[in-house]
Amino acid sequence: MSLVVVGSIAFDAVRTPFGERERMLGGSAVHFSLAASFFTDVRVVGPVGEDFGEEEYAVLHARGVNTEDIERVEGGRTFFWKGHYDYDLNTAHTDDTQLNVFGEFQPKLSEQSRSAENLFLANIQPDLQREVREQCTDTRFAGLDSMNLWIDIARDSLKRTISQVDLVLLNDAEIRMLTEQPNLVRAAREVMAMGPRVVVAKRGEYGAALITADGFFALPAFPLETVMDPTGAGDSFAGGFLGYLSAQEDWCDDASLRRAMTYGSVIASFNVQEFGTERVSRLTREEIEERFEHFRRMTALEAAPA
Amino acid sequence: MSLVVVGSIAFDAVRTPFGERERMLGGSAVHFSLAASFFTDVRVVGPVGEDFGEEEYAVLHARGVNTEDIERVEGGRTFFWKGHYDYDLNTAHTDDTQLNVFGEFQPKLSEQSRSAENLFLANIQPDLQREVREQCTDTRFAGLDSMNLWIDIARDSLKRTISQVDLVLLNDAEIRMLTEQPNLVRAAREVMAMGPRVVVAKRGEYGAALITADGFFALPAFPLETVMDPTGAGDSFAGGFLGYLSAQEDWCDDASLRRAMTYGSVIASFNVQEFGTERVSRLTREEIEERFEHFRRMTALEAAPA
Repeated sequence: MSLVVVGSIAFDAVRTPFGERERMLGGSAVHFSLAASFFTDVRVVGPVGEDFGEEEYAVLHARGVNTEDIERVEGGRTFFWKGHYDYDLNTAHTDDTQLNVFGEFQPKLSEQSRSAENLFLANIQPDLQREVREQCTDTRFAGLDSMNLWIDIARDSLKRTISQVDLVLLNDAEIRMLTEQPNLVRAAREVMAMGPRVVVAKRGEYGAALITADGFFALPAFPLETVMDPTGAGDSFAGGFLGYLSAQEDWCDDASLRRAMTYGSVIASFNVQEFGTERVSRLTREEIEERFEHFRRMTALEAAPA
Repeated sequence: MSLVVVGSIAFDAVRTPFGERERMLGGSAVHFSLAASFFTDVRVVGPVGEDFGEEEYAVLHARGVNTEDIERVEGGRTFFWKGHYDYDLNTAHTDDTQLNVFGEFQPKLSEQSRSAENLFLANIQPDLQREVREQCTDTRFAGLDSMNLWIDIARDSLKRTISQVDLVLLNDAEIRMLTEQPNLVRAAREVMAMGPRVVVAKRGEYGAALITADGFFALPAFPLETVMDPTGAGDSFAGGFLGYLSAQEDWCDDASLRRAMTYGSVIASFNVQEFGTERVSRLTREEIEERFEHFRRMTALEAAPA
């Protein structure tokens, strides 16, 4: 079953204590769709400028991502983000943001995208998310991500959009901020009361927690000795998570959701081991399954026999 | 097998957003020994003043804790800590500390304590920890806790003490601070290079991680809707962890350590549900096993059949 993602397509300039890149492919929709492509058919929707070329398309096409709904704006330039991380890799410091073609983005979905079974609204302005959501009338499930900026300046709109989706993926601090509830379990309950059945709290280096009406599941992040660039970790997690769910018949049973959490964590862990899309674009399904098994052993209360 | 703990015995005054207590039994050795008492014989070593009365001994005796090595100082007053927590329950704000008899504490262990199989050095000055460590020549294993203060002002002494123990339990920020290594996995490796075989990184509301030469295991904290008072959570975790290990023939095999992590998390989760020792002092083994099972279901990658 196919999965459509609407979000940013970007060039990123990133500096971390371990190196830097002046201009590399990035953006939430890119990280998401590469991650999801290991599990399902993915269509990506978003604007690019004339500076977005064959090399960038090739990264997406190599993973089989459908780019027909990427809108190339004549005379425009692609969204650009510049940032850096210090030794606390949990915190991104933004040095420059140039919205460019993203500033005027009005999502136009093709008939194929509108009829996709599954939808992910990456972190864009919540009114735009809702416009997309309302164009997709036959979805089996829709998920969304957002950020502190929209909670701050567009809270009511974001809450309306949340009421129209099935899964919400946010940082745990954002879930608390949105609900003004310091206890995560209660905060997630309040989000579910708005409509969604599934809440995922992303916790950076501590992993992620899943909260549903049935209960609570949490996974640590994969313990890496080298984290090169955390940019896109959350979107890679979301891509692995929703990509895996898109391929399941019963997407919201507990076992599917737990495996999806693990696949999300697996892809995010590969993503941060190199800059930008470098690692995920040459990742294999075998490597994914190997690390999935590693997660299983790592989190099993009863250690598997050697 | 018996377990000796050396640490503080205190009166605490605590205020949280959910209530306050003006004077209640506390201290690292108290929280530790109550938690450990569910699994093994516990002896507690530490000083108290004349204000420490029958009521306080009764809490320890009700759980079978041996108090013969509690040193009652004539004319002295018991260590007193006053603090509060705001809505971020991860951070304790200290309002008053009166060392009292604890300021002159020179640990004197009875013959029975010196010959105990297992030892825990709760968070006290690292020179004192080492004096105790050296009195106990027959221990099967010794563990320690410490804090940022000692890393700051007595780092070399702390490192020497660490070189003489088998298990180190610290907050993850303290492990990074001690080793000046931002990556937790590498930081834990550096601690192991000092001597210990087992490093536990306590992560507050995110649970705890176990690092050994064999690998990595992490557990989320139990998802509670109400956390009343986090004081003593770390010591309760340590008590459940080392108490369980004390009762195991092979204390450092992977399965024992993983179960010990879970028992530690279980007791810590009960501890924070009420003030001070209130909840743990009326806890039952049945409640512990029930929550242990809850942890198993909560963390299982393949959900158990309903």
